[in-house]
Amino acid sequence: MTRRLASFSFAKRVPSTPSIGSTTVTKPDHIHLSFGFAAPHLFPIDQLSVSAAEAVTLHGRKALQYSGSGGPGKILKWIQNRSLVHGINAELNQILVTYGSTQGIDLATRILVDPGDHVWVESPSFFSALQAFRTAEAVITSFPIDEDGVRVDLIENALLEAKRNHKPIPKLVYTMPTYHNPGGVTLSVEKRKRLAELAETYNFYILEDDAYSELNFTGNKYPPLYTLIPERVIYLNTFSKIIGPGLRLGWLIADQHVIDKVRLLNLGGSIGVFTQEILAQLLENFAFQGHVDSLSRHYRKQRDVMAEAIKESFGEHVSFHLPEGGFYIWLRFDDHVNTSEFLQDAANRGVSFVDGKSFFVKPEGYQYARLCFSYVSEEQIVRGVKILADTYFAYLNNPVPS
Amino acid sequence: MTRRLASFSFAKRVPSTPSIGSTTVTKPDHIHLSFGFAAPHLFPIDQLSVSAAEAVTLHGRKALQYSGSGGPGKILKWIQNRSLVHGINAELNQILVTYGSTQGIDLATRILVDPGDHVWVESPSFFSALQAFRTAEAVITSFPIDEDGVRVDLIENALLEAKRNHKPIPKLVYTMPTYHNPGGVTLSVEKRKRLAELAETYNFYILEDDAYSELNFTGNKYPPLYTLIPERVIYLNTFSKIIGPGLRLGWLIADQHVIDKVRLLNLGGSIGVFTQEILAQLLENFAFQGHVDSLSRHYRKQRDVMAEAIKESFGEHVSFHLPEGGFYIWLRFDDHVNTSEFLQDAANRGVSFVDGKSFFVKPEGYQYARLCFSYVSEEQIVRGVKILADTYFAYLNNPVPS
Repeated sequence: MTRRLASFSFAKRVPSTPSIGSTTVTKPDHIHLSFGFAAPHLFPIDQLSVSAAEAVTLHGRKALQYSGSGGPGKILKWIQNRSLVHGINAELNQILVTYGSTQGIDLATRILVDPGDHVWVESPSFFSALQAFRTAEAVITSFPIDEDGVRVDLIENALLEAKRNHKPIPKLVYTMPTYHNPGGVTLSVEKRKRLAELAETYNFYILEDDAYSELNFTGNKYPPLYTLIPERVIYLNTFSKIIGPGLRLGWLIADQHVIDKVRLLNLGGSIGVFTQEILAQLLENFAFQGHVDSLSRHYRKQRDVMAEAIKESFGEHVSFHLPEGGFYIWLRFDDHVNTSEFLQDAANRGVSFVDGKSFFVKPEGYQYARLCFSYVSEEQIVRGVKILADTYFAYLNNPVPS
Repeated sequence: MTRRLASFSFAKRVPSTPSIGSTTVTKPDHIHLSFGFAAPHLFPIDQLSVSAAEAVTLHGRKALQYSGSGGPGKILKWIQNRSLVHGINAELNQILVTYGSTQGIDLATRILVDPGDHVWVESPSFFSALQAFRTAEAVITSFPIDEDGVRVDLIENALLEAKRNHKPIPKLVYTMPTYHNPGGVTLSVEKRKRLAELAETYNFYILEDDAYSELNFTGNKYPPLYTLIPERVIYLNTFSKIIGPGLRLGWLIADQHVIDKVRLLNLGGSIGVFTQEILAQLLENFAFQGHVDSLSRHYRKQRDVMAEAIKESFGEHVSFHLPEGGFYIWLRFDDHVNTSEFLQDAANRGVSFVDGKSFFVKPEGYQYARLCFSYVSEEQIVRGVKILADTYFAYLNNPVPS
C-alpha cells in the first residue's frame, strides 16, 4: 500500500499501555511463576470429554442456538445452589453468566461509572480491574492493604473528609476480600461489616471479586460482602479457578435492578451458550465439593513448598503474608529494591514473575513481586524460587544504575 | 429487607430502553418470524459432537487454560484462508477472535468513539449495533437505503456540508453492505468504491458487518469494503450464521494498529479458548464450502416460499426487495400503517415479527416489518405469513385509535 492517510484520533478511553509488562522468554524449560493459572493436571478432562460429547448429542441443536436449551437455566440453578453454601441467597433472575469475572468487572463498571466518576481500589489491586477502570475513564484512588485486608479505616476517613469538603464520593469500591490477588490477604469479618455499613451510609457500590474463595486452605469461613448488604454489592465469581479458565465463564450476582441495567447494554445476547451447555452437563454428575477440596489440598501443598523455598533462598531479604487460600504469594523486598529492574534478567535465567508496579495505580510498589504457586510443579517452584533469589542477589550486588 | 437506601445514579451510557421491544408469547406452536436465527436442523451436530470429545481429549488441558493449545492459532489460520476466498488478504496478527460480531461492534466502537463523537449508520440498521453506539454515547445520524444499499450520495453530501460548515465528521460509519439486516439489500460495487474513497478523503473508519455474506443465493460476488481500503475498515464476521450462534464466536479484521488498540482494552484475555478448540477440531475435517452451499440452497428456498406467501396473502398491500442472500425480508406497508400497533395481536394469534421502529435511530420506520425466513419451516412460513396478513387486515379494518 502506498496510500497515505491522515492520522486518526482514537477514543480517549483506550489506555496508553497494556495492564502488565511483558518479558522475552527464551528457554523451553522456563518456569512461569507469573501465570495466575490453574494447574492443568487438575482439570476434570475425562469427565469434560464425556460431557462435551453428551451435551452436543443431547442438546446440540439448542446449545448452538442463541437461547440455548435448559443449559443456561441449569447453570443458573447450579450457581444458585452453590452460592447458598457461601451464604448467598439469590433468585435466578439475580444471576447473570459472564465471560469470566473480567467481563463482570467491565460490565459493572460500565453501568456504574461515567468518565470522571471516582472508583476506589485496594493497593495493590488486580491489574485487569485497574485497566477496566482506566478504560471507563474513572478517577482511581487506592487504599493500602494490611494483614487482614484493605484499610477500611482509611476508606472511612477519606469518605468523611470527602463529605465534609463536598468532594466526590466513589461510585464504586472494588475489592477482592478473600485470598487477595496479589496480596494473599483476607479481609477480616469486622472490616467486612464496616465496609458494608459505609456502602450504605455513603451510597456507593462494592464490586466484590470472589474469584478465589473456593480455594480455601484453612477451613476458615468469611461472609461474602454480598451477604452483608446485597443492595449495594455486585458479586463476581468464575469457573476459571475451579474448572478451567479456557471456558471463560463466570457469573455476576446483584439486585434485579442492576441486572436489568447490565442487560440494557445488550452486548450480544446469551453468553457462550454452547460452553454453558457442556459445563452444565459436567456439573450434573460431578462431585464438585470433592473436586474443590482436592484442589485446595493441592494448592495448599504448593503454597507450603513455595513458602519454604522462599525462606530457604531469600532468608531475611523478603517478607510475605502466608495466604489462607488462592494462588499467590506477594513478596515484599526492602524499600530500595525495584523488582522491575531484574524482571528481564530473571526471564533470561528461566523464571518469570509479575513485578510489583503492575498492581498499583500510582507509580509505586516497586519493592514487591507476585509469585504464583498454582500453575507450576513443586520441583519448578523450588527451582524457580532459587533462580529468582540468584537473580535478586546478583541485582543487589550490581544494581541497575538509576 | 427493610433497609432503605438512597437512590443511586447509574452511568449515563446505560440506554433507557432495550434495543428491541418484546411481546408476550402464549401458544406452544408459536411461529417465530422474529428470530434471526440459523435453522437448527442444519447445524453440523454429529461432526461437532465428535469434535467436542476429540478436542477435549486431545487438547483438553490446554484448551481449558487461558492461552489454549494450537486451537486459537488454528482458528486464526482457518479465518485467514477463508477470508482469501472473499478477497481479504490479512496477516494472522490482523485477526482477532470475538464473542460474535456483536462484541466486535462493541470493541470497535469503544476504541474509536468518545462520548459526543459522531457515528453514521444506515436506516434501517441492526438494533444491537444501534444500542452499542448509544452505549458509547455517540451522536448517531442515519442515511436511508435503497435497492442497492445505503445512499452513499447522501453520505457524500453530508460530508461535504459538514466540512464546509466545520461540523463534525463521523469517526465511524457502520454498514452491513451484503444482505443487509433488516433491509435485505446489497450495496452495489460502485457505491462500495465511492464509500471507500470517502473514508479516505474524510478520514473516518468504516465498520463493515459482514455476518451474512456466506449465505449467497445468486452466485453474485461483491468485494468487501475491507478489500477497497483496508487501512480504514474494521471488518466483522461471525460463525453464528454458518455453524451456530450458540458458539458466540466471530472475528474482527483490521490494521495491526487497530488490533493493538482493542487489545489495550484488555477485557479478559483470550476469547472462549475452549470453544475455539472444539470449533478448530470441527473445521479441520469439515467440508465447509459444501456446508455453506447447502445452507445457501436451503435459505434461498425458504426465501422463495416466504416471498410467494407474502404475495399470496398481502397482494398489493406490501412491497419488498427480494434479498440475494441472508435471512430477512423487509416488508414495507403503506405509510399510514404502524406495525407496532399489531405486534401484540400478531403474537396473540401465534406469530411474531420485529416491528420497523426497532431498526431506526429516530422515531420512524413504523410502516416496516422484518420477517425472518431462516429459523422456521416452510410450512410455518406459509402459515405464519397468513396469520400475519389476517392480523394486518383486522388492524386495517379496525386500527388502534391514535
